[in-house]
Amino acid sequence: MFCSWQINLYFCIHFNLSRQKHLKMAKEITSREENYSQWYLDIVKKAQLADNSAVRGCMVIKPYGYAIWEKMRDQLDKMFKETGHVNAYFPLFVPKSLFEAEEKNAEGFAKECAIVTHYRLKADPDNPGKLMVDPEAKLEEELVVRPTSEAIIWNTYRDWIHSYRDLPILINQWANVVRWEMRTRPFLRTAEFLWQEGHTAHATKMEAIEEARLIHDVYARFAEEWMAMPVIKGVKTENERFAGADDTYTIEAMMQDGKALQAGTSHFLGQNFAKAFEVKYLTEQNVEEYVWASSWGVSTRLIGGLIMTHSDDDGLVLPPQLAPIQVVIVPIPKPEPELMLVADAIADKLKEKGISVKIDTDDKNRPGFKFAEYEMKGIPVRIGMGKRDLENNQVEVARRDTKEKTSAPLEGIETYVEKLLADIQANLLQRAKTFRAGHTTIANSYDELKEALDGKGGFVYAHWDGTTETELKVKEETKATIRCLPLDGEQEEGKCIITGKPSKQRVIFARAY
Amino acid sequence: MFCSWQINLYFCIHFNLSRQKHLKMAKEITSREENYSQWYLDIVKKAQLADNSAVRGCMVIKPYGYAIWEKMRDQLDKMFKETGHVNAYFPLFVPKSLFEAEEKNAEGFAKECAIVTHYRLKADPDNPGKLMVDPEAKLEEELVVRPTSEAIIWNTYRDWIHSYRDLPILINQWANVVRWEMRTRPFLRTAEFLWQEGHTAHATKMEAIEEARLIHDVYARFAEEWMAMPVIKGVKTENERFAGADDTYTIEAMMQDGKALQAGTSHFLGQNFAKAFEVKYLTEQNVEEYVWASSWGVSTRLIGGLIMTHSDDDGLVLPPQLAPIQVVIVPIPKPEPELMLVADAIADKLKEKGISVKIDTDDKNRPGFKFAEYEMKGIPVRIGMGKRDLENNQVEVARRDTKEKTSAPLEGIETYVEKLLADIQANLLQRAKTFRAGHTTIANSYDELKEALDGKGGFVYAHWDGTTETELKVKEETKATIRCLPLDGEQEEGKCIITGKPSKQRVIFARAY
Repeated sequence: MFCSWQINLYFCIHFNLSRQKHLKMAKEITSREENYSQWYLDIVKKAQLADNSAVRGCMVIKPYGYAIWEKMRDQLDKMFKETGHVNAYFPLFVPKSLFEAEEKNAEGFAKECAIVTHYRLKADPDNPGKLMVDPEAKLEEELVVRPTSEAIIWNTYRDWIHSYRDLPILINQWANVVRWEMRTRPFLRTAEFLWQEGHTAHATKMEAIEEARLIHDVYARFAEEWMAMPVIKGVKTENERFAGADDTYTIEAMMQDGKALQAGTSHFLGQNFAKAFEVKYLTEQNVEEYVWASSWGVSTRLIGGLIMTHSDDDGLVLPPQLAPIQVVIVPIPKPEPELMLVADAIADKLKEKGISVKIDTDDKNRPGFKFAEYEMKGIPVRIGMGKRDLENNQVEVARRDTKEKTSAPLEGIETYVEKLLADIQANLLQRAKTFRAGHTTIANSYDELKEALDGKGGFVYAHWDGTTETELKVKEETKATIRCLPLDGEQEEGKCIITGKPSKQRVIFARAY
Repeated sequence: MFCSWQINLYFCIHFNLSRQKHLKMAKEITSREENYSQWYLDIVKKAQLADNSAVRGCMVIKPYGYAIWEKMRDQLDKMFKETGHVNAYFPLFVPKSLFEAEEKNAEGFAKECAIVTHYRLKADPDNPGKLMVDPEAKLEEELVVRPTSEAIIWNTYRDWIHSYRDLPILINQWANVVRWEMRTRPFLRTAEFLWQEGHTAHATKMEAIEEARLIHDVYARFAEEWMAMPVIKGVKTENERFAGADDTYTIEAMMQDGKALQAGTSHFLGQNFAKAFEVKYLTEQNVEEYVWASSWGVSTRLIGGLIMTHSDDDGLVLPPQLAPIQVVIVPIPKPEPELMLVADAIADKLKEKGISVKIDTDDKNRPGFKFAEYEMKGIPVRIGMGKRDLENNQVEVARRDTKEKTSAPLEGIETYVEKLLADIQANLLQRAKTFRAGHTTIANSYDELKEALDGKGGFVYAHWDGTTETELKVKEETKATIRCLPLDGEQEEGKCIITGKPSKQRVIFARAY
């Protein structure tokens, strides 16, 4: 029999053990090797980035995930404004007759449109307390929930543009769009997503092309400098182009499973929308011309790319430039007053440097649990400090990317951390570049292409004859698509690995999200 | 007959006259006295704040209007975060079965809901090149485009809340919502609008009420300190409450036509949504309880309030705190190099103070035209400078609110302008308060109430017996509603002006937007 303290002890131990086990289980995630796809879903869930919703294919972006999006949005918005763009807002709905005006665009999106047909509910006479769509409130013309806004915007631009003096128009909008996707995955592919879409109007073809390229550069710079995600800048093939575009510029990133992610696109739209919506202007020479256009967008998909570029089997890894919390300070073993005094002082110094800091004030959980928690959330730097550390005038600094720990002197800790954050940012980019280099193949035959795709995966540079036929054949046989015709680097001529016909440059084949 | 120079002269004069006339006409707006409603629409159009769209009741928010919204949003977002709130994002669509779960809320919004019934378009076999709704792509359950998000959010909170440790949840979202209004008016009432909606969950009733009141204070502070729009803080009657709320706190502003504008509301939702969606938590004492809730929102309607509080017959008037451009510098008569040098130097000094500045570099239009243009756009301060001004080391400073002009020394101009902007901000608030005081009546009989409403309009403080019956009678007979039971000021008892029954305090009657 147990005496009472034994029972208590038993309970305590049992409780702690089961609690520890519960906690451990709550934090365990599938490893990348075991199941890459599940690993991704586990991170989205355990790092509290997003949640499923009651609406098929739509996610709830949780506060921590949204905070990352806010950082992305603020920086992109700054870059757009620095390059002369302004924001505006156009309606969520597109009347069907406008939607179908640019035929290629309409055809491209028709199969995935949410359609509003009625504008009222009424009490259901057969089901007390329930509602039904009121058949008398049917719209004369159905409304498409925007999958993209070219149609509604170019219909508006017709009223805004009369003379060359009204050009260029350099407008961006931050909005939600809906594409009824059958297979969804949080951030990467959801029925509703958040994005920005730029829609510009120009007097000349060259100006519209320059605009599309300018934004292509902005996207690439954002991906590399802020997301620490290296990208290949290139042009899409005709088959992979945006519906309604004459050219689509893309940035393509490589995920840790070797698959490509199209991370942002910028389109030269020619005069396609101007012609569909009769948008003309008078030139300085008083001649009537159709207007030239570009459009461009990045979305919450970038968060999916961010996760899959840097994270590991312990959870999310965030580049400091986009981390909502850059540094967490953990008093060890608990937030006692004398430790808190020092924590506050460190936090103040870091904040003065513009570094975002959280002090852990939780007195219930143990340090090990907390450390795992902050690792799961990808906080770039963790400062741990116990009494002995302080006696030695130092703290323990752990970096999330490499998981290295070092002791650092309290004196000048803010400069040390500032440099460390820059190091982490640079290291993440370098690590991703090294990974990409290790998963890039130059293939000189179809067999080499297949071998690379089925082997290490990644990007395969190969010659292609420029035809959609060949492109589709490869896609059907290997599930790889042409991600882009890269714009940077050497342009080497050769022969198509499939047909042997002449090729002007190698293109990038990869399996993609 | 004309000789050629005469013809040219004739053309020049004629052209200039007709151009001037055209320009003048382009800027003329209906006066408030002539037609208040048209004056409002003219300002929205001529100040380039918004435009109609091809979608019934939906507007396009133009860049200048959107820039004002961005300033509002950024400040409100800061105030929410300072009071402990975080942002998140929930789906645009609400499945009908969730929408109808909280009956009062559903009933309140059912008549104005856009409903998605299908998810695909297909080629219309009878109309080549046209699309039709694919009848085979009918949704099993219709989706309501959110008119407000309580339903979808509380359905999610059920998964997030288990114990008192999960509370409070203090979430806000910036989003678009759709309410199918029959009579629309830009900013004030549109089918789609932009807003923020806070949705909080609490362990106790008192905490939820305190939250609703905290935000009520934030809204009032924002209205007065940023919009320079004085508001009455009060509680709505049962009849005017948000559908699904136990109490609605409101801020009520007075427009220049004497009508009231409900500018922001904060609701104590009791346990209504928790009960509808079965959201319970375990208390510290291990008892299961329903969660308490608040929700609160302000929208692009605030821009309508801003326009109607300050603007005049020359166009928009903006409080400096929300003006996208606070100061415009106009070199007179043209942007010549020596003037531009000084303009740049002044702009740099102002920017250092955090003041937003535009330098006018247009060399086509005349100063008078430009001045009228900047007045139309409500830019708070205009600095004009010609060569003679500079010879005297001074510039001409015009303030938009009073249209006063003064000469100010170049030396220290940034301090002068900084103070002037603060003066304008204070003056606009004071002017609006004076207007409100002049349009406020204490009525002690029904006749006095009617006389005030039909006379100077505005707010009428009168005693009311607390019944919906009396409230509706007054509404039917006078078109005035009870805007609120004011929270501030003396609470004087009396007798209802309609029924003579006892009244605990005077309430505010007014006609409203």
